[in-house]
Amino acid sequence: MSLKVGIIGAGPSGLAMLRAFESEEKKGNKIPEIKCFEKQDNWGGMWNYTWRTGVGKYGEPLHGSMYKYLWSNGPKECLEFADYTFSEHFGQTISSYPPREVLFDYIEGRIKQSNARKYIQFNTVARWVDYVEEKKQFRVVFDDLKKNETFEEFFDYLIVGTGHFSTPNMPYFKGIENYTGNVMHAHDFRGADPFIDKDILLIGSSYSAEDIAVQCYKHGTKSVTISYRTNPIDCKWPKGIEELPLVTHFDDKKAFFKDGTSKEFDAVIMCTGYQHKFPFLPDNLRLKTKNCLYPEGMYKGVVSDSNNQLLFLGMQDQYYTFNMFDAQAWFARDYILGRIELPSKEDIQKDIKNWINYENKCNSPEEHVDFQTAYLKDLINLTDYPMFDLNKVADMFKSWIKDKEENILTYRDKTYTSVMDQTKAEKHHTPWMKELDDSLERYLEEDPVDEKELEKTNYY
Amino acid sequence: MSLKVGIIGAGPSGLAMLRAFESEEKKGNKIPEIKCFEKQDNWGGMWNYTWRTGVGKYGEPLHGSMYKYLWSNGPKECLEFADYTFSEHFGQTISSYPPREVLFDYIEGRIKQSNARKYIQFNTVARWVDYVEEKKQFRVVFDDLKKNETFEEFFDYLIVGTGHFSTPNMPYFKGIENYTGNVMHAHDFRGADPFIDKDILLIGSSYSAEDIAVQCYKHGTKSVTISYRTNPIDCKWPKGIEELPLVTHFDDKKAFFKDGTSKEFDAVIMCTGYQHKFPFLPDNLRLKTKNCLYPEGMYKGVVSDSNNQLLFLGMQDQYYTFNMFDAQAWFARDYILGRIELPSKEDIQKDIKNWINYENKCNSPEEHVDFQTAYLKDLINLTDYPMFDLNKVADMFKSWIKDKEENILTYRDKTYTSVMDQTKAEKHHTPWMKELDDSLERYLEEDPVDEKELEKTNYY
Repeated sequence: MSLKVGIIGAGPSGLAMLRAFESEEKKGNKIPEIKCFEKQDNWGGMWNYTWRTGVGKYGEPLHGSMYKYLWSNGPKECLEFADYTFSEHFGQTISSYPPREVLFDYIEGRIKQSNARKYIQFNTVARWVDYVEEKKQFRVVFDDLKKNETFEEFFDYLIVGTGHFSTPNMPYFKGIENYTGNVMHAHDFRGADPFIDKDILLIGSSYSAEDIAVQCYKHGTKSVTISYRTNPIDCKWPKGIEELPLVTHFDDKKAFFKDGTSKEFDAVIMCTGYQHKFPFLPDNLRLKTKNCLYPEGMYKGVVSDSNNQLLFLGMQDQYYTFNMFDAQAWFARDYILGRIELPSKEDIQKDIKNWINYENKCNSPEEHVDFQTAYLKDLINLTDYPMFDLNKVADMFKSWIKDKEENILTYRDKTYTSVMDQTKAEKHHTPWMKELDDSLERYLEEDPVDEKELEKTNYY
Repeated sequence: MSLKVGIIGAGPSGLAMLRAFESEEKKGNKIPEIKCFEKQDNWGGMWNYTWRTGVGKYGEPLHGSMYKYLWSNGPKECLEFADYTFSEHFGQTISSYPPREVLFDYIEGRIKQSNARKYIQFNTVARWVDYVEEKKQFRVVFDDLKKNETFEEFFDYLIVGTGHFSTPNMPYFKGIENYTGNVMHAHDFRGADPFIDKDILLIGSSYSAEDIAVQCYKHGTKSVTISYRTNPIDCKWPKGIEELPLVTHFDDKKAFFKDGTSKEFDAVIMCTGYQHKFPFLPDNLRLKTKNCLYPEGMYKGVVSDSNNQLLFLGMQDQYYTFNMFDAQAWFARDYILGRIELPSKEDIQKDIKNWINYENKCNSPEEHVDFQTAYLKDLINLTDYPMFDLNKVADMFKSWIKDKEENILTYRDKTYTSVMDQTKAEKHHTPWMKELDDSLERYLEEDPVDEKELEKTNYY
């Protein structure tokens, strides 16, 4: 085996890829030469929290979009690795909605079982990729940010796991250049603290807006206004959170809305989504897509149809996350190892088209869950990644959707049961709305919260 | 003439380069084929204000570091173009310290006299440069951000005018990740408005700290604390601005200082400078330097000694600005046209070393002014760029240094006389501390300020 495989990114996708090869090696089989490159100084991708905003220490656009007090917004039982359970990692039962640090610890726990770290070069960004026809290889130029040195590597297969929640989509609103409060994108939101006792405006109506609204409410923001383009999120919001139609313009500290109302805000946070961005790829190799469950241009959502030696992981909109990246990585591995053959170009396009047609027919969140469940079934059936009860996971997702509709402030207190090892999650020692500390240490503690701490929050 | 010249950046440096070639063409001489590429959607570089922070519309690191209410912090008579005066542009006499919009208008005014815009492709970023030995040319890959398309161009000479005040240098301080106020770099500061009635901390003691302190004071910040590493700025600060030694750490909303004091702050603005950053160049072609008056590695501060077909403009620390870029651009033009020959490698290194030794001997700001004056004299003597009375400009710089020492709040009310056309600047219609409107419209107005406006400011 003289294949060389390059992996860009050591987040959940890149690490899944390393794990996939590693599990193959453990079976005693030969694996290709692997190198993984990560822009940040540690693995974990989005889950590797940073206090920085804008650009990083070396001037590269920041990858991270997570914030203090971020807790999983879906049950952990829906993202559990099939080959490494939460129970195995923590040795105790925990709740269904852990905070960021706990999930980071879980991701890291699996990969630390191996020597995967030796494959990864940190603080190193992919600058430019050329496909060299004569060699049938990619030339990739990397930039070692710490050393301020560039170097090139050649790969037979290039796997891009750089995520798609890092490049803000930040629309212009009339007058925003003269708005006198703080303006930022959700990407640069680092926690509710600076907004305590403030009136804030969130523009957008997807996960970012929903979660930042609730986090700010929980930590003492005076009022949260959410401005939607087409439809409101339409939760049963507590007093202190309201929804208004789209902003028409800004003037001084005031925002004006389509319904004729206006209000002064201390800050505007644009929860207006993210762009798929691949600055290091020539445009004919770039994935050009909006956020959706089945982006065009990839066979099985993985193999680029512009170049079969180029693979993408995790470029889909996500209900499933970690275990979906696993399913894709196992598929990518077996494809690279020659165990999975590509069908004809026509059949590839037919397969892609079928999935896209299926997605287009889905209208409700529940149907989207079913779509991605079907996608995972299809993928997992092609490899030896441990199959799990995907129908049960789909049911959990649907139940989660209902939980949120019922009460956006308490859905994280619900518990689910692992389909991997049947562990029933524990009710957390403290109701989520009362838990102001999101540290791993506090999370794994057994004691109930201090009464004095309770008084600080405006529990609804 | 079949030479192809590529210019990266259409800020003051790139525009000076276009102007240099254009002035040659006007004389009836042939010029090379020129293409200029600009990341932003308009020319002007740093002077092209944006409300955005972090990354731009297309996810590229933002170029701009300017803010609302930014006024020139040096006399305009020190930066005046030798071939296009302020009087010629505005048709009226103006003060010595115009606001950003007025200087942008002036830069634009000169370049608009020609058809230079046709050479510039906007929204286009240089991705990667390879020097192709067989062709003796640079292959440059560009990315058309709007179209999401990449393309390559070949150039005999590549001129880099991308500036060096765009990539923040942002050090870590212990506990900053848990600080509960706003943290930003001066690069992302967009004006004093969000800091009215707030206590803010500026870390750093150079131009950014000095100017942001004064701007925030002027517009109603409750208190400004400046934290310095080695020496305080040591102006006669008004009540409301104080200097403290370096921050040791943060805790919650509090910063702790080396002298044992501590204070709560609503925001921290790191005025900790910028990095020279050239992500699109292989590291052997990169300029690797700290901020100084004579960076190593360039003959006459322009021609790269790693590759004589690679030129840099404006990479020096600056007293002189626009007219220095001009002097460099005229030199670059004549070098490309073959009128100026490079000395031997040894003589180049000797020349560079002489300048660096000279800089190392300079200790005071006045000596640094003399240094850059000597550099400009040397450069301008080599081309037909109109020589001007550089000794008088040096005197103005020295007088400006004194003005600031005497009163940091009123130095912008002083007036100077143009060495280009002897126009004596007018006293502005409103003292700077009372002028809260920095628009071009207001600046060129003749009326004194409204009394009500006056009451809003805490004039010292």
